[in-house]
Amino acid sequence: MSHPQRAVLLLSGGMDSTTLLWWMKDQGIAEIHTVAIDYGQRHKIELKSSRTLSKQAGAQSHRVLTLNLQQIGGNPLTDQALSIPAAADKQQINTVVPYRNLLFVTLAAAWAEQESIQHLYLSPVQDDYKAYRDCRRAFYDALETALSLGGPHDTTVHIHTPFVEKWKSEVVQIGLSLQVPYQHTHTCYEGIRPACGRCDACVERLDAFHRNNAVDPLEYEK
Amino acid sequence: MSHPQRAVLLLSGGMDSTTLLWWMKDQGIAEIHTVAIDYGQRHKIELKSSRTLSKQAGAQSHRVLTLNLQQIGGNPLTDQALSIPAAADKQQINTVVPYRNLLFVTLAAAWAEQESIQHLYLSPVQDDYKAYRDCRRAFYDALETALSLGGPHDTTVHIHTPFVEKWKSEVVQIGLSLQVPYQHTHTCYEGIRPACGRCDACVERLDAFHRNNAVDPLEYEK
Repeated sequence: MSHPQRAVLLLSGGMDSTTLLWWMKDQGIAEIHTVAIDYGQRHKIELKSSRTLSKQAGAQSHRVLTLNLQQIGGNPLTDQALSIPAAADKQQINTVVPYRNLLFVTLAAAWAEQESIQHLYLSPVQDDYKAYRDCRRAFYDALETALSLGGPHDTTVHIHTPFVEKWKSEVVQIGLSLQVPYQHTHTCYEGIRPACGRCDACVERLDAFHRNNAVDPLEYEK
Repeated sequence: MSHPQRAVLLLSGGMDSTTLLWWMKDQGIAEIHTVAIDYGQRHKIELKSSRTLSKQAGAQSHRVLTLNLQQIGGNPLTDQALSIPAAADKQQINTVVPYRNLLFVTLAAAWAEQESIQHLYLSPVQDDYKAYRDCRRAFYDALETALSLGGPHDTTVHIHTPFVEKWKSEVVQIGLSLQVPYQHTHTCYEGIRPACGRCDACVERLDAFHRNNAVDPLEYEK
């Protein structure tokens, strides 16, 4: 499959989207515009990671869009009064903000539209699907149709999800081969450095490195 | 077709969504939750109309959700530096904020999800389609699929658009028969009272009343 010359990437500053950024460069996409979303996440530190990594990769531009998800409520990722569940508690479903991805992608698409860009890149991975039902291609196909039918001009919007069938450990494998600077990515839901090492996000990240017999360059508590 | 017992309505405070609210009551929907979106519109007065009309209709609850569309930029509905085109200028396309409806519906769906409500009501009408490509059922079908596939639980989300095949004049006809208090609705893009009577929104509204041989109870400039 050929690649577009101009694309927008949703870059959270985490492992998967950062790997995707390096992968896009490797595929020869000339003009990459990165977008991060400030949605009131307590791990706001990832916004800093996102900006740093965009610059480091030589992206064409970086944009932070804001979206108030706290007003939807009831989620520990945005509500300081609730505590982040430990991975061992099997509560990942509780960190789901309804339609978070749909809102993020659509905001990025609105911005891309203003820049006359029709190609969006996102990094859902297969591991995410167990807690996030939208991390599957069927969902993105439907959204692609909605974006194409609902945009201000008669055009086709493409949502590229090259990692959607891959496990996080495979993504890390790709990233290691592309020398992704994982020390600058942020994963921990608690939003702390050193990372907590106990939340779902940390546990999955550590596992992905472990499966590659690699050492995560991040520092962890204890 | 039978109607749900509980539903969320996107109520802008304009003519179409207000008529829909009265229509829903008439259809016997017991519990109607209204949602308005503060997106930085210069006609913020419509938010007041929305709250007033929700109360007047005896809706179960009213909620204002915020969404910053100014950050997407370049639109006279949200940018005070740009002027609202007069209807005579045939510039309605310039008042299109990319994916505004998609974002509004998804935000309302996220809130509805938290309330365990799967039925959303919206009021696109046929006249809107010439400038807003998302005011057609094919778009809402795709979005319904995306919302159903992408929600936190395995459920079907229904987007009801009972007026999508109707012209604005037909909607006003329904509203007049249901005694909708049109004097409390707001339409003018300039956000002023008396209304300007020149912008696209005003001109369409006046025409819809005219076609019903009815008098718009709103006051207009001059």
